[in-house]
Amino acid sequence: MDEAFTKQIDARLAAGRQAAVVGLDPRLDALPGTLEPDAPPAQRIVAFYREALPRIAPLAVAVKPNIAFFEVFGAEGFAAWIETCRIARELGLPVIGDIKRGDIGSTAAAYARAHFEHADAVTLHPYLGSDSIEPFLAPCRESGRAVFVLVHTSNPSAGEFQERVTDGETLCEAVADAVDRWGRELVDSTGYSAVGAVVGATYPEQLVSLRARMPRAWFLIPGVGAQGGAVADLGPAFDDRGRGALVNQSRGIMQCFEPTDRDWLDRITAALEGFCAELREVCRER
Amino acid sequence: MDEAFTKQIDARLAAGRQAAVVGLDPRLDALPGTLEPDAPPAQRIVAFYREALPRIAPLAVAVKPNIAFFEVFGAEGFAAWIETCRIARELGLPVIGDIKRGDIGSTAAAYARAHFEHADAVTLHPYLGSDSIEPFLAPCRESGRAVFVLVHTSNPSAGEFQERVTDGETLCEAVADAVDRWGRELVDSTGYSAVGAVVGATYPEQLVSLRARMPRAWFLIPGVGAQGGAVADLGPAFDDRGRGALVNQSRGIMQCFEPTDRDWLDRITAALEGFCAELREVCRER
Repeated sequence: MDEAFTKQIDARLAAGRQAAVVGLDPRLDALPGTLEPDAPPAQRIVAFYREALPRIAPLAVAVKPNIAFFEVFGAEGFAAWIETCRIARELGLPVIGDIKRGDIGSTAAAYARAHFEHADAVTLHPYLGSDSIEPFLAPCRESGRAVFVLVHTSNPSAGEFQERVTDGETLCEAVADAVDRWGRELVDSTGYSAVGAVVGATYPEQLVSLRARMPRAWFLIPGVGAQGGAVADLGPAFDDRGRGALVNQSRGIMQCFEPTDRDWLDRITAALEGFCAELREVCRER
Repeated sequence: MDEAFTKQIDARLAAGRQAAVVGLDPRLDALPGTLEPDAPPAQRIVAFYREALPRIAPLAVAVKPNIAFFEVFGAEGFAAWIETCRIARELGLPVIGDIKRGDIGSTAAAYARAHFEHADAVTLHPYLGSDSIEPFLAPCRESGRAVFVLVHTSNPSAGEFQERVTDGETLCEAVADAVDRWGRELVDSTGYSAVGAVVGATYPEQLVSLRARMPRAWFLIPGVGAQGGAVADLGPAFDDRGRGALVNQSRGIMQCFEPTDRDWLDRITAALEGFCAELREVCRER
């Protein structure tokens, strides 16, 4: 059995790392132009991560590849996804598979089998309720996997359904309560549970109430950088030991260079170091 | 441009076909034992559909492959998914890709590009609101594609969030109103829109109110057969011309035989003919 996701994360933070997650959303027009320019797309993507991930591994707490950007390239893209996950894990980087799946029980079991083979944690939709989540919890119990359930997303129309109010409580708050309930039996010695929550950085006013409802959940926080969220607003997501939140940045790090830049690896390193410095600051201010 | 999904469906129903959708959820232990038993999983799956789809093509109105059961087999499974979609479309069968994706705009655009290459329509999660749906509507406008948004699913815990009440209206009713709104500009000469809704057969009491809220939406109705829903309860989903609903059955047709049965193709045909007879009955009773 691999070491549990929550324990891997906790150990990396305890060793002084910041809570920086690097999102891997490969786009052909944002790859370094010098890197196998004539190879097929999937091969170019793997070549990019094979070079870049060793720079990311000493700094980031985890990576979050988004499978949509791999599925675009069909079966070869899917193979590139698996290979990217493998390279990251070989470098000791925990992998959060950003797959956003959600289906009825028998189908959810198939997705869990498919994706926990390559990723330490996955993201899930809550719309179908408990029995769409349960098949993912068995691997959390048995082999240290983890899930992040979408609670409040980072996109402009997030509130359309997520902030609908019932009895003074929004939908995303009801989902937050369910996340807390689903995760209760999965809290380990780190004090946190294997059932985390996706909470967008673009709605910082939600962080306080959602943190109160999910005291044991890791927050996976997208929306920093290109989407407009600010690291400085994320203090309430962290506990006073600087734990509890994992902050993702994708484009701001992995697309911080022009395809013609020869020093793209150094630029990625510098962007990630800058991101870590911002995170250090926000945790110090807590 | 391929013919629009809604027009393909309408033409097939006008020609006397029933609204039978066959779900393709491949499971290795439910494949015919005689069919390339020693081949790798993905190859066995494609061999199964290569034999079975010509039997399904003259009877069903569409097929609904569920990508979870292909993703289990990794990149080879993804290739089998693409090949299954290709075989079905070559036989004239519209393909509803049951992918249940849902992500922020830039990611949704990647999923739309990835999946509309192989499927005529796809299923989507509504949790992220309008801007997660919009990237799929452009291909509906421009190349006749269609979407089915999850409104009320068929699983036991469907109501957990979907039936939460706000101002006398459930969440799924609010999603239904959004489906109607998203689809308004996409109604064509068939009287129906390219924005459909997934409404589970296991909650027939919902059909009347949801139909009233989405008069122009095709309903994709799962949950018949193994999940306990009854075709006889589905009358309110159809209009008085027998249009408006597409009823899916997966296991009851494609797993209606034992792996040792030599006459599995005839059994599939008979099960599908029985399903069509039930649908004919429910439409006649309207």
